[in-house]
Amino acid sequence: MLEVAEVGNKVDKAAYKAAVPQMRLDLVNAQYDLRNADFSVVIWIAGDDHVAANDMVNRLNEWMDARFIDTRVFAELTDEEAARPQLWRLWRSLPPKGRMSIFAGGLMRAATMRANGDIDEADFSRWLRHIATMQDQLVSDGTVVLKFFLHTPEKKQRKKLKAAEKDPEQGWWIDQRDWAQLEKLGPTLPFAERILSETSAPGAPWTIVESTNARYRDLTVARTILAALTARLEQPANQGPALADSVFGDFDGQANVLSGVDLSKDLDKETYRRELAKYQAKLHRLAIEARDKGISTVLAFEGWDAAGKGGVIRRVTQALEAGDYRVVPVAAPTEEERKYHYLWRFWRDMPPGGRFVIFDRTWYGRVLVERIEGFAQPAEWQRAYDEINDFESSMVERGMYVAKFWLHISPEEQLARFQAREDTPYKQHKITDEDYRNREKWDDYVNAVDQMVLRTTTDSARWHVIPANSKYYARVATLKAITKGLERTLRRAQ
Amino acid sequence: MLEVAEVGNKVDKAAYKAAVPQMRLDLVNAQYDLRNADFSVVIWIAGDDHVAANDMVNRLNEWMDARFIDTRVFAELTDEEAARPQLWRLWRSLPPKGRMSIFAGGLMRAATMRANGDIDEADFSRWLRHIATMQDQLVSDGTVVLKFFLHTPEKKQRKKLKAAEKDPEQGWWIDQRDWAQLEKLGPTLPFAERILSETSAPGAPWTIVESTNARYRDLTVARTILAALTARLEQPANQGPALADSVFGDFDGQANVLSGVDLSKDLDKETYRRELAKYQAKLHRLAIEARDKGISTVLAFEGWDAAGKGGVIRRVTQALEAGDYRVVPVAAPTEEERKYHYLWRFWRDMPPGGRFVIFDRTWYGRVLVERIEGFAQPAEWQRAYDEINDFESSMVERGMYVAKFWLHISPEEQLARFQAREDTPYKQHKITDEDYRNREKWDDYVNAVDQMVLRTTTDSARWHVIPANSKYYARVATLKAITKGLERTLRRAQ
Repeated sequence: MLEVAEVGNKVDKAAYKAAVPQMRLDLVNAQYDLRNADFSVVIWIAGDDHVAANDMVNRLNEWMDARFIDTRVFAELTDEEAARPQLWRLWRSLPPKGRMSIFAGGLMRAATMRANGDIDEADFSRWLRHIATMQDQLVSDGTVVLKFFLHTPEKKQRKKLKAAEKDPEQGWWIDQRDWAQLEKLGPTLPFAERILSETSAPGAPWTIVESTNARYRDLTVARTILAALTARLEQPANQGPALADSVFGDFDGQANVLSGVDLSKDLDKETYRRELAKYQAKLHRLAIEARDKGISTVLAFEGWDAAGKGGVIRRVTQALEAGDYRVVPVAAPTEEERKYHYLWRFWRDMPPGGRFVIFDRTWYGRVLVERIEGFAQPAEWQRAYDEINDFESSMVERGMYVAKFWLHISPEEQLARFQAREDTPYKQHKITDEDYRNREKWDDYVNAVDQMVLRTTTDSARWHVIPANSKYYARVATLKAITKGLERTLRRAQ
Repeated sequence: MLEVAEVGNKVDKAAYKAAVPQMRLDLVNAQYDLRNADFSVVIWIAGDDHVAANDMVNRLNEWMDARFIDTRVFAELTDEEAARPQLWRLWRSLPPKGRMSIFAGGLMRAATMRANGDIDEADFSRWLRHIATMQDQLVSDGTVVLKFFLHTPEKKQRKKLKAAEKDPEQGWWIDQRDWAQLEKLGPTLPFAERILSETSAPGAPWTIVESTNARYRDLTVARTILAALTARLEQPANQGPALADSVFGDFDGQANVLSGVDLSKDLDKETYRRELAKYQAKLHRLAIEARDKGISTVLAFEGWDAAGKGGVIRRVTQALEAGDYRVVPVAAPTEEERKYHYLWRFWRDMPPGGRFVIFDRTWYGRVLVERIEGFAQPAEWQRAYDEINDFESSMVERGMYVAKFWLHISPEEQLARFQAREDTPYKQHKITDEDYRNREKWDDYVNAVDQMVLRTTTDSARWHVIPANSKYYARVATLKAITKGLERTLRRAQ
């Protein structure tokens, strides 16, 4: 497929010299406008000609104002990266709104690894799928994604290297690795072509750039960036149409996942103490085993206000060594966090190998409070179910244990707890008028929880709806579920 | 020395139950006030009783609002951490202003490693010195640093473990490792005591807490935190007195490091092209060797406006593979960055193993623009020289190559370049009125540069003052200095 780009495109020196100053000026101006825009720009530079890719990255940094470009070249995974889900480092490298990142190195690296057999077909396909999904997520979030594949026929590359080697002022950058890279090109290219075809999408197509002539290459890439950036600055992104209300409609009064929960479940104090000790002991042993095996755990806690999340989480962390877990309390996103895709901050908090991260409220806020309060547009929260499923599946693929809990109480129980909190001085700060206002939206939440549980329960990352009118019961039931799930994950890993 | 704390302190159950609710309320209120304060809080929990330390960390998270506490327990170094200077992960874990972090695990870990011989005396002393220096830096920056050493006599610890093991509801958290830890206590304690004495400082003393009785321990630590936090909230930090002007005075008209620079140095075009190719080729080879050996490089560029830093940096990066370097342009700190010690953002950007980071403007802004414009208080910039020397020495100790460049031009040359920039469309954005205003402060800068070079030139991280009226000369001279310095660092590492 790459041969189609071999048409002999060239720009002569005079034309190049004439075009560059205006191009630089336009690029820099577009960059300045970008700084106040509400989107970010990701530029992928890939190619079968790695010398050209290297030059291109340097050229873009030279032509634009390098202070507003983050360049990230992806090399071998570090051990911190290897312990996280596949695309963790990509998520960590995303630019915030108003900024631009250049990514290089990752795609051809994956193709080469696949050609060498360092990764198998299953891993490669999963990676391709996640790349495509991430790209969709970014594009629908308004990010401008520009992808360039720099193609130079192998013969021409050989010729270039040989000619350069003869010239002492030009040849110093050539070494054994450049030749070695060229040797491997044959077996690698088919995989590169698969990457191109499987990650090309309407909002983020690949631009294949003939790179035999460096001047043509530079100007073509620069022009494409300039045109895309200018167009996007002039026209705001389209959020995409929301689906019909009926798809996510209100099943008023009908049975739902919460209506079937038996809230009368309870434990007496003695049974509670015995069972709590039993499951904490079990979790303690499993956590040590998980750490030794490098198997990480992500626990996601959602539930009604005052459902007892804090108390449940504390019973979980009591069973863990202080160094083995982190509790991430999730509040409204900060100004910095709002400059990224809403999943960005959760990607950032993925646990290191063998550790626990416990989210006190989670990414599900997108389809709960953000949906109900209108903080997210319908098109945004509607696509979130799929985005979340992809996010969680990439954790599970890495061998992680992922479990999600909805702590369920009745409206009457909630009211009683609000009042009790107001009578306890050090708990008063937990209660605000907003908590009372939220009670009026109880039915909206029942509907949203129902759809959330149905749309994001997967074999590998399931929801546990925990009856929590009895705190004792809820704590033991949660610990029981965690020990069971973690044990299963550990056995499967053997 | 720890025996002095063995006095049999106890709090009985009733007194504890009576005290806790008010304590929790006061702590939570203090936390809320902290959120709007302009300082951060670092709480170190260390101790010879690691079970107690673990409980204490959990207790603090339980008593306070865990959403506003970041807990960081330091375990084995990851490979990303091992490639950076010793205290890198500590710097990365610091809380911003208005927040609180709990650190645990690091100190006893270091003592144990020293006792086991995993680190030698030289490394241990260096680590102690850096800890003490970092602490000084934080304290003088306004951070509240609270350090607790939880002490339980070994015999008492044994008794506690044995008693707990007999109780099925209590004993589940005990395992082989707890006993193993206790076995190693004897040889470890002397090193722990050294940490205590060498890192105790007026602004950040150690509080040794007898921990045989958990209730006494909990209340003592909580009370100490509450008192310190309350006092600090009521009374702003004292910046400390500035030194007499004469110490940093203006040596008006006297000879200085810049007055001796021969600005007439030049290269003709042909020599330039030959030499440039020669040193770029050399740098290219050395960089590959540095990557293979995991030796990182930090290049710091300072200089007059329009001195040609960008052009010099580009000639350096042309010699490097795109994945082996990152250029960090340093502008005024962002809102987020201002919430930390001024060195924090530079610690964040330390290169991964074997890579280059090139700073376009640097931490020396503290003693240049921030001094001259009054953005930093006299006490702040005056102590910065020592802070910077410690920062750079911790890089050099890790085997890194560190070099600093001041690109020097004459005021006449600067003016000519400003005017030329205004005539080049894509360079116009580089010139602002501020650039012209800065020219009026030329003599202040000459004085500040003089003191900077004299006070921060060390054997291992030296300043290169580069005559830069000729761009050709400056580029070649810089490349020459880098290749020479990097080569020396590589040979020394063999």
